[in-house]
Amino acid sequence: MADECDVLIIGAGPAGLMLGCWLARTGVKARIIDQRATKITRGHADGVQCRTIEIFQSFGMAERIQRGANELSEVVFYNPDEDGNLVPTSRIPDTEPDTSRFRHSVLNQGRIEDFLIDCMKTGGLAVERSMSPLSLEYNDSPTESHPVTVKIEHLVPVEDSSDPTSGLYRSNILSDEEFNRSRLRGGKVENIKAKYVVGCDGARSWTRKQLGYSLEGDSANIYWGVMDARPITNLPDIRVKVVLHSANAGSLMIVPRERNLVRFYIQLGTLQPGEKIDVSAQSPEKIIESARKILAPYTLECPEVEWWSVYEIGQRICKTVSFKNRVFLAGDAFHTHSPKGGQGMNVSMMDSYNLGWKLAACAKGLTSPSILDTYGQERVEVARQLIEFDHKFSRLFSGKPAVAESEGVSMEEFQALWVRMGKWTSGTAVKYDPSLIMTASSPTKTALAQNVIIGSHFESQMVVCYADAHATQFADRLVSNGRWRLIVFAGNMEDENQRQRFNHLCNQLMHADESPIKKYTPPSADLNSFIEVLTLTSSPRRVLSYSAFPELARPFVGKFRYPTYDQIFSDEVSYLDGGGMAYSGYGVDPDGPGCVVLVRPDQFIADVLGFEQCVENLAVFFDGFMIKAN
Amino acid sequence: MADECDVLIIGAGPAGLMLGCWLARTGVKARIIDQRATKITRGHADGVQCRTIEIFQSFGMAERIQRGANELSEVVFYNPDEDGNLVPTSRIPDTEPDTSRFRHSVLNQGRIEDFLIDCMKTGGLAVERSMSPLSLEYNDSPTESHPVTVKIEHLVPVEDSSDPTSGLYRSNILSDEEFNRSRLRGGKVENIKAKYVVGCDGARSWTRKQLGYSLEGDSANIYWGVMDARPITNLPDIRVKVVLHSANAGSLMIVPRERNLVRFYIQLGTLQPGEKIDVSAQSPEKIIESARKILAPYTLECPEVEWWSVYEIGQRICKTVSFKNRVFLAGDAFHTHSPKGGQGMNVSMMDSYNLGWKLAACAKGLTSPSILDTYGQERVEVARQLIEFDHKFSRLFSGKPAVAESEGVSMEEFQALWVRMGKWTSGTAVKYDPSLIMTASSPTKTALAQNVIIGSHFESQMVVCYADAHATQFADRLVSNGRWRLIVFAGNMEDENQRQRFNHLCNQLMHADESPIKKYTPPSADLNSFIEVLTLTSSPRRVLSYSAFPELARPFVGKFRYPTYDQIFSDEVSYLDGGGMAYSGYGVDPDGPGCVVLVRPDQFIADVLGFEQCVENLAVFFDGFMIKAN
Repeated sequence: MADECDVLIIGAGPAGLMLGCWLARTGVKARIIDQRATKITRGHADGVQCRTIEIFQSFGMAERIQRGANELSEVVFYNPDEDGNLVPTSRIPDTEPDTSRFRHSVLNQGRIEDFLIDCMKTGGLAVERSMSPLSLEYNDSPTESHPVTVKIEHLVPVEDSSDPTSGLYRSNILSDEEFNRSRLRGGKVENIKAKYVVGCDGARSWTRKQLGYSLEGDSANIYWGVMDARPITNLPDIRVKVVLHSANAGSLMIVPRERNLVRFYIQLGTLQPGEKIDVSAQSPEKIIESARKILAPYTLECPEVEWWSVYEIGQRICKTVSFKNRVFLAGDAFHTHSPKGGQGMNVSMMDSYNLGWKLAACAKGLTSPSILDTYGQERVEVARQLIEFDHKFSRLFSGKPAVAESEGVSMEEFQALWVRMGKWTSGTAVKYDPSLIMTASSPTKTALAQNVIIGSHFESQMVVCYADAHATQFADRLVSNGRWRLIVFAGNMEDENQRQRFNHLCNQLMHADESPIKKYTPPSADLNSFIEVLTLTSSPRRVLSYSAFPELARPFVGKFRYPTYDQIFSDEVSYLDGGGMAYSGYGVDPDGPGCVVLVRPDQFIADVLGFEQCVENLAVFFDGFMIKAN
Repeated sequence: MADECDVLIIGAGPAGLMLGCWLARTGVKARIIDQRATKITRGHADGVQCRTIEIFQSFGMAERIQRGANELSEVVFYNPDEDGNLVPTSRIPDTEPDTSRFRHSVLNQGRIEDFLIDCMKTGGLAVERSMSPLSLEYNDSPTESHPVTVKIEHLVPVEDSSDPTSGLYRSNILSDEEFNRSRLRGGKVENIKAKYVVGCDGARSWTRKQLGYSLEGDSANIYWGVMDARPITNLPDIRVKVVLHSANAGSLMIVPRERNLVRFYIQLGTLQPGEKIDVSAQSPEKIIESARKILAPYTLECPEVEWWSVYEIGQRICKTVSFKNRVFLAGDAFHTHSPKGGQGMNVSMMDSYNLGWKLAACAKGLTSPSILDTYGQERVEVARQLIEFDHKFSRLFSGKPAVAESEGVSMEEFQALWVRMGKWTSGTAVKYDPSLIMTASSPTKTALAQNVIIGSHFESQMVVCYADAHATQFADRLVSNGRWRLIVFAGNMEDENQRQRFNHLCNQLMHADESPIKKYTPPSADLNSFIEVLTLTSSPRRVLSYSAFPELARPFVGKFRYPTYDQIFSDEVSYLDGGGMAYSGYGVDPDGPGCVVLVRPDQFIADVLGFEQCVENLAVFFDGFMIKAN
């Protein structure tokens, strides 16, 4: 007898947990299993990019990152001068202005997983640990609602197996299987039948192997050490990010962390083609010794080393990430690369963030499964760009710098790449191509909202909430709950004609038979439950009383039909927190005809529409994949 | 056999809990008892003033308020027009610009108590409930280290006594004794011997009665209702603060709260002198009915009422708050007034915040008990101002407005008072008089730092941390841990002469025999443990390497002698968060001789000193009350 669920997630790292958050929030029946008996507490990834924090914000937990993490403010480049002595050559901000309302931060992966686990818990989903998958079977029958069966073994800890303290375990040079072999033995076996299975099981993905897919790519034959320690040093810049190339002893990166920790990345040596890292020869003492040589003449003592590991640089990708839209790969399971760009954990979470709302909608029977095609279309391209970036970046990082007349990597070129890639590494530059759920741009659309880019995420501007006068980051309203949004740039409410056009639009959206709001919102559900309308006026609050807005803009919801107070905003200067720049920031004419921006549940902009053809165009768009409830 | 503790706190409301936080943080052996079996969860106070949030920040928990509370942005005044119809006559910001880095917010008192309880818990202190004091005895013997003995009865709940849902219980018209009478019976009796006892036991303070002190003042013979509800109304301003005078039906205040609640204050009626409110005649329905009359023609429905109560307006004060510097009163125990100014809970917490660090220092034998005299000196004056403000404010609020030619309260006068008192009600205008622990100002001192006002709290400016380039609110460094601070305006480090003067000052402070740092910091303790030096340069970070600062400015601390990275700051524009206005904000010449600001553990400015006589003056100041360890 098999247990049935909508979605089975294999692997409870960041990608799996992010998917779990989506499914828990949207009320999908999911299970999430991991073969590790315990979650990680030290080491591993630590970079949290701006776009990732934006997503955390959409789940209501950005503040936990902001509180626990160390925000990175500055990057200092140390390079050899003409005499080969290390000197700081330039200082730049770690997050470029206007990248995001959040900042690049660093925090132990284990803590980030805690936040995701807590978020899942509020939706009733918890990780099942010590669960090792044994086999995956697919039933092709068209009548089978749960076509994927995964056989699972419940692992039991072997007594007296103490936890190894180094990071060689669970790094990319020892696998989970090797880690578990001496520590766990098999127990009860269980079958799980699922509508969908997602392999978030890392670089050595079991799921990927079951599908017969493989990672392709190459190795740079260079290996680095990584260490979390509390250092004592006379290097003056130990609490900012340092990117350091020594003349002859290799390169090093310093990332100051929470709790006075510092993450060191230290170039250790090269390998012959085919050669493996000699695991037994690695130790924190040897890593620190390498760091000292690179840092000289600066001193380094590390009384406390919290975690360390060694890794080999390489870039690999699997360009097929789905099997019949029933089994998917996410995160390291389809792309691996070097860690110094701080991309791995972030891109992995963005993979499953892209997949989560689509799976939820399909699992509930609300949309055609064809929207699942867009997962691979959208995320393989991001992974390809990541691999390309990392290939170039890691080789420049490990290269010997050109000092004086000698040959080598140009430090100017390296720094220029660093700055140029800032927006990309922040995660905010991702842009998806047209698809079933993403319209193509056009000059007409661009004219309506010049800086609202179809295919990109909806950026934030400070706006003022009508009902309570709060200055509000507009994107904070894009909560991850599975709703689509229509952001209505209503224009100037002092203009009677414009106000009538806006009222007419709201009326049509609410009452016209072809309107997707009318068509796909269940009659018993709240008016904003499928598509939420967010209104932004260019005129200030005092022009129009809150009660004068049409019902669609401030629907009555819930058991008691309370009015909503958080869907109408104005573009004006708030009392204390700025604002008044939203129309210009989005490139919309404050005295013009206004426009409507369609935003997906994952905050990506799917279309920009004029008022007049809005309902017809939305009808065509949603009829392309929505399934009408009977 | 009596249990001994340093401080016994009677009453676990906001004042008692705030005191508990101080004592827990400073490692003082304390107990905190409350006769209520459970903490409150609904109703009661809700206003959290700016200065209160600053104090919460100093305990590391401001963000919990910011997350849970509703920030108030706007105040709208509704008044009758010439025809007697209610109209909004003006809108003002709820927190005036430049008041604080925080904003006036509202949150259920029970949640605020939760934060304080959690904060105490990190220091190992928990509330002991169902503990009723029976007697207080004082032993005058000079050899008695714990001269106050309080006999306590452990109360046991009576079965089948359900919790009353209205707020008439625990309001100012029914006492805790009346509340408890039918619900709890006496159990085990215990004696507690304490060095100090603090009565934080509210308006009907048992402690005050034991001391034979009494509240003096009068009643306005006016009573109001208060209610937390989720309303449905066509008043457009239900999510901002509304101050409303109807023509003939009385006054009303609306305070939008967290979780879509709204706090209503509703004028109900008048009493004859000596007449008591008829408790049995009160109900939420009657309060809502009164509100409807005042709000007409606007509608009001309240499907959910979470809490309600009725109170009588009056102002009372007890001007003696200490018995032999061994027993103290704090909070409502020595001042009561009407709730609409949002002052009671805040001023009460500020009372015990003033007392806490002084009691801790005395209990540890570090300072002369004479510093305890300053508690009454400082806080009775604040209470006196509060009573004066509330007397005027509440009578204007309850007064019938002057409409057209009719007699009554001038709404212009009322609004002008409101705005004028904004800084005072925010809690940021408090200024203490000279005392043993507060020097007098002088023109010489003022010339050094024009906007650093001796007797006021040290205000915040955005500065940049040298070590990590973080933009930092300077006052965030004034953590409540019992340390004094020297804020050194070091000036321009590009000026070689100024740098030498600064280095010389640091040298003297660290090594001169008369320096209080040398004299009163125990040899085994960290260099920053008694007085912490915070350095602010007017020159930017790049001018001087972090490692080039003298040791006093970046002391090595803890078991491993790690360097500190959070004591040196520059006044420059940060990468993304402003800054560069601190010297001008504090009124210190960036190219001048610099100065030193002495800040008490409670963030109040005790002195402003030039570099040259700094050590001598500090010696005189601290020798006035510090006790040197043997």
